[in-house]
Amino acid sequence: MTDGCRYWEDFNVGDVFEFTGPPVTKDEIIEFASQYDPQPHHLDEEAAKETILGELCASGWHSCAMLMRLICDTYLNEAEHIGSPGVEEVRWQRPVVPGDCFHVKRTVTKVRAIPGQGDRGLVQVIFAVTNQNEKPLLTMDCLALYRRKEPLIETNQGAL
Amino acid sequence: MTDGCRYWEDFNVGDVFEFTGPPVTKDEIIEFASQYDPQPHHLDEEAAKETILGELCASGWHSCAMLMRLICDTYLNEAEHIGSPGVEEVRWQRPVVPGDCFHVKRTVTKVRAIPGQGDRGLVQVIFAVTNQNEKPLLTMDCLALYRRKEPLIETNQGAL
Repeated sequence: MTDGCRYWEDFNVGDVFEFTGPPVTKDEIIEFASQYDPQPHHLDEEAAKETILGELCASGWHSCAMLMRLICDTYLNEAEHIGSPGVEEVRWQRPVVPGDCFHVKRTVTKVRAIPGQGDRGLVQVIFAVTNQNEKPLLTMDCLALYRRKEPLIETNQGAL
Repeated sequence: MTDGCRYWEDFNVGDVFEFTGPPVTKDEIIEFASQYDPQPHHLDEEAAKETILGELCASGWHSCAMLMRLICDTYLNEAEHIGSPGVEEVRWQRPVVPGDCFHVKRTVTKVRAIPGQGDRGLVQVIFAVTNQNEKPLLTMDCLALYRRKEPLIETNQGAL
């Protein structure tokens, strides 16, 4: 499954693309947290019960990483993706717990050319992730650069 | 080393705290990317030469995760940290390559109480990460919730 968008010109504001991932496991939550976010509520079920969250849940950065993997698998690795300058916003809306499946709805919010860089363009999208019970887990508002199918040739006076 | 901030009341706007991490290794860049961000420029030195970035570099999410680990190790795990509602902005300013050391400057930008939640408060900080050559690598503008040392008792008429 892919969205069919390979080049910058293929993205259009308002386009929606949806995809779903496998269940998150306890082992991967603990493995990621051990390496990158060793807080009690990400590391140990018993210790998590003593925290305000009350149960073992994934690091927010793990959730972002898991979403990134789904993005790669569903469309990014077939596209002419250059890289990302950054993220406009992330909201962790609810703890991600073992058994949660990411259902992702990606909406294109902006598509724009970049002055002086005729070989590429910017695409902004919002990912809204819900679980198998339609509960919101996270949102991520992202920027990405894609190659243009038809690069602009620019002069000192601007784009031709 | 810690910043000495344990509770919400210990953070003050303008406070600066700095810390440095170990060199990023090629192996960990590839390991993270294999699991979470399998794009050619994060996976393989030869393949990376064919991309616009031109060299093997860390996934942006890996950079965020490495920063999170440093945050845990330097102060968060000694503080009364509850969790984070999200991130206001991330900017990946330069590819993170093997050998880069994260030098992190954390600046507190906002400290505020939360109406109706007298047991906690919000702290907003910006992390500016540079490498060993003082080149900017990334910035991250983050929100975090901490317990209050002296919880407010609230009534229907508001905080006492």
